[in-house]
Order: sequence, then C-alpha cells, then structure tokens
Amino acid sequence: MNETLYNYTLHLADNALILAQRNSEWCGHGPVLEQDIAITNISLDLIGQARSLYQYAAELSNNIFSSTTGARTATEDTLAYLREGRAYKNCLLVEQPNGDWAQTILRQFFFSTCQFFLYQRLQRSADSTLAAIAEKSLKEVTYHVRWSSEWVIRLGDGTEESRNRLLNALDDLWPFTGEMFTPAGYETDAVNLGFGVDVKAIKPLWEQRVNEIFAEATLSSPITGSEGVWMQSGGKEGVHTEQLGFILAEMQSMQRTFPGCEW
Amino acid sequence: MNETLYNYTLHLADNALILAQRNSEWCGHGPVLEQDIAITNISLDLIGQARSLYQYAAELSNNIFSSTTGARTATEDTLAYLREGRAYKNCLLVEQPNGDWAQTILRQFFFSTCQFFLYQRLQRSADSTLAAIAEKSLKEVTYHVRWSSEWVIRLGDGTEESRNRLLNALDDLWPFTGEMFTPAGYETDAVNLGFGVDVKAIKPLWEQRVNEIFAEATLSSPITGSEGVWMQSGGKEGVHTEQLGFILAEMQSMQRTFPGCEW
Repeated sequence: MNETLYNYTLHLADNALILAQRNSEWCGHGPVLEQDIAITNISLDLIGQARSLYQYAAELSNNIFSSTTGARTATEDTLAYLREGRAYKNCLLVEQPNGDWAQTILRQFFFSTCQFFLYQRLQRSADSTLAAIAEKSLKEVTYHVRWSSEWVIRLGDGTEESRNRLLNALDDLWPFTGEMFTPAGYETDAVNLGFGVDVKAIKPLWEQRVNEIFAEATLSSPITGSEGVWMQSGGKEGVHTEQLGFILAEMQSMQRTFPGCEW
Repeated sequence: MNETLYNYTLHLADNALILAQRNSEWCGHGPVLEQDIAITNISLDLIGQARSLYQYAAELSNNIFSSTTGARTATEDTLAYLREGRAYKNCLLVEQPNGDWAQTILRQFFFSTCQFFLYQRLQRSADSTLAAIAEKSLKEVTYHVRWSSEWVIRLGDGTEESRNRLLNALDDLWPFTGEMFTPAGYETDAVNLGFGVDVKAIKPLWEQRVNEIFAEATLSSPITGSEGVWMQSGGKEGVHTEQLGFILAEMQSMQRTFPGCEW
C-alpha cells in the first residue's frame, strides 16, 4: 500500500509543480499587469499544493526506501528538483508549452476543472493527509476554474482573432485531455485501496462543465463527435513528451549546479 | 508641479517594476521551493505597488499631455510595457543581474531598506495619493526588509562559501548604492513642492541599518572607509546600464508583438 500511496501522491504533486512551472514563464511577460499577477498567483497556489504533497511523499519515501537502500533522505526539494524525467508522473497536458495566451488559458481550464472534481472527491480519501491537502487546496482550485472559465468565454465570444486562437489551442490540446481520465496502474490500485479517486467517474462531470463553458463562449462542444479521436498518454507512467526535458533542464539547473545548495 | 509629480511617481513605479521583473526570473529556479515562493511573493508585492503608481502616473499623464499632443491615452500597461529605455527612471541598482542567490539577496536588502525609510516619510506627502500608496505598501516593504536582512545574516555568518559569495556580491553592488541617495532633478523639485522625500536625509538611517545587519552577519561595515568610492549614477535620469535593455527586450516582447493585446 505504501508504494502505491507514494506514487499516487507524487503524481498529484508533479501535476501541480509542472503546471506552476509553465505558468511562471509568464511572470513579467503577461500582456497586461493585472493578468500577469493573476497567472503568477495561480503558480504560487500550485507550488504551495506541490510542496504539501512532496513533503508527504518524502515522508513516505523515507519510510519505504531508506532502510533497505541506505539512500540519502528525500525532501520536498530532492523530489521537486533532483529526479530524472522518467520519474515524473504528471499528465502530458500540464507540460505542454504556453503558446499564446489562449493556449495557456485553455490548458488551465481543462486541468483545473479536472483537478476540482478530483480534489472534491479526494477530501473523502481514506488517507487523512491527502484528504486534508485536498480540502485545503479546493478553495484555490475553485478560483482557478472560475478565472480560466471566464477567460475561455471572453476569448471564444470575443474578436475573430481571439476565437481563432482559442480554436487553434483546442486543436493542440485536445489530444492531451483523455489521459486525465485514463487511470495509471497506481491510480487503479489507489482506488481499490480506498484512498484514490476514480478518474473514470469524474470524466462525465468534466465533460458537462466543458460543454457549458464552451456553449457560453459560443463554441460548439469539443466532446460531441470526438469519441474516436486518438488520445496521447504515458505521462502518468513517466513517458513524457520532449517538453518535459526542456522544463527540467531549466528548473533543475540551480540544484544540479550547486548540489544541496546549502550555503 | 504636475510634470514633477508625474516623473516622481514614474520613478517610484519603475523601481518597483524592474526589481519585480528581476526577482521573477527566479520563479521556478530557486534553490529551494520555500524560497522560490518567498522571492516570487516579493515580486508580486512589487508589481502591485508598481500598478498603483502607474495608474496614478497614467492619470497625471493624460491630464498633462493629451490635450496638447493628442497622444493616445496612457494606461498602467502602456507605461509599464511601451516606453523606451531612456524613459525609465529606476535606479541602476534594481536592474543589476540576479547573479547568484547572495547577489539577489543583497540587492533586495539594499533596495528594500532604502524603500522602507522612503515610504515611511512618503506617508506624510502633501500628495494624498502618494501618501496612501506608501501607507498601503509599507507593511509589505517591512517584510521585504526583514526577510532580506535575515538572509544577509545567514549568508554572512554561514559557511566560508556563503560568506565569500556575499562579499563578492557586495563588491558588485556597492557602487550602485550611492545613486539612491543622490536626488535627481525631479526629486529635488518634489521635495521643494512638499510631496517628495529628501533622499539625502534618509541616507544616515540606511547606513545605520546596513551597519547593524552587517555586524550581525559578522562582516565589517561596508560604509567605513568607503567615503571616496566612486558611485555609478544616471538611472533615475534615464541613463541606464546595458542590463535594462535586456530586461525590456524580454518584458516588452508580448505587447510589442501583439500591440494592445486586446483579444
């Protein structure tokens, strides 16, 4: 059970960290000061969630592995900064490039909407630590959903330019949405053990919400007619797009240049 | 009076924005998740201050210039993102590169300590808008001073490595500290008009605080014996180091690529 819990916790943490990392690339580059602050605040919320989850994962990891391997003690920072790409369990959606503002917004909307329904259920997890983190984070995620939904509506029901950009973003990102609702091995185990959320069960809720917001944005449903569309997968099991390599190269440079950074 | 007030407000705004911009380069690159969040939060505080000041400057600018030049309406965003380098009035200190963590910390400590004494006095400005912005910001700045002071002590009184890095940062940054206390023309005018702060008068307070923190950090005073050291200047009058060009190139790329960004 402990190793499943460890993997499951890391998966949730990696989702938050990698999306925070992507969003933070906007810091100081946003088109408008107000939105620059908003997207950076979302990054900070996600880094905060990632920290709580990594701290828990480090605790679990030290219980499981240290006595047998003599490995050095894991911390939130070793987990965030010193793993190889194959050890990251985030879904592919969050590692996709920022692209333009429409792409960043749509990525956030798709992810936060899923995270919202997931954390809502995770509050009732048999694991009390995960339940507490979910409960604490849900208020933030609720805001992320509202903020990104409003932007999807503004862009979709805006100018021809903004609408086209949103539709292009949809083409790019749609193939990465399916993975969120296809459980990895440790997710299925986590459900069976009583502490994980069944992502298949939240898919209809996510689709319902996406349809509602797209309708408000005067766009046709991306779900209708997309049943046969091939979906990318692998991220949750450590098989990533080349994008993750670029993110890690940048994110890990400090820790790898100055190991431990203890000065 | 209005043009002095405009220039003075812009100077305060540019200081905050450019330092926020520099600090934000750490977002996702900090050596430790906790400090990554701290430095990004300081960026957000500074962007918040910059926004209040730019909004006020835009109002002043539209009153002064629009009727005579027919120029398009200034907003916080045109002021932040669309001026030429020569129009930025930040002091040179804040545009200096992040370097290593010690350099970032020392830059923050030198700047925030000065900003603290300046805003403390600006609360009594004859201009009620500036007074209100100073009052609102002072709590944030108090935290920035405390946070950076603690880090200066930790690095100075830490390992040989951390102490050497701090001393190197001091060599790099010291020549940029004098400018903060040498008034630009509009600062002298602002003092005479009753709404500006006399930066010469806050120099002894700043020096006192620097000496105290350096003593706690077991370092000798950077002030003693430095009276004849040549100081860089020009930033407050728009004459910048090459560093500002790099910052603006990155910061302005969105707005210049998509003018107005109205989609």
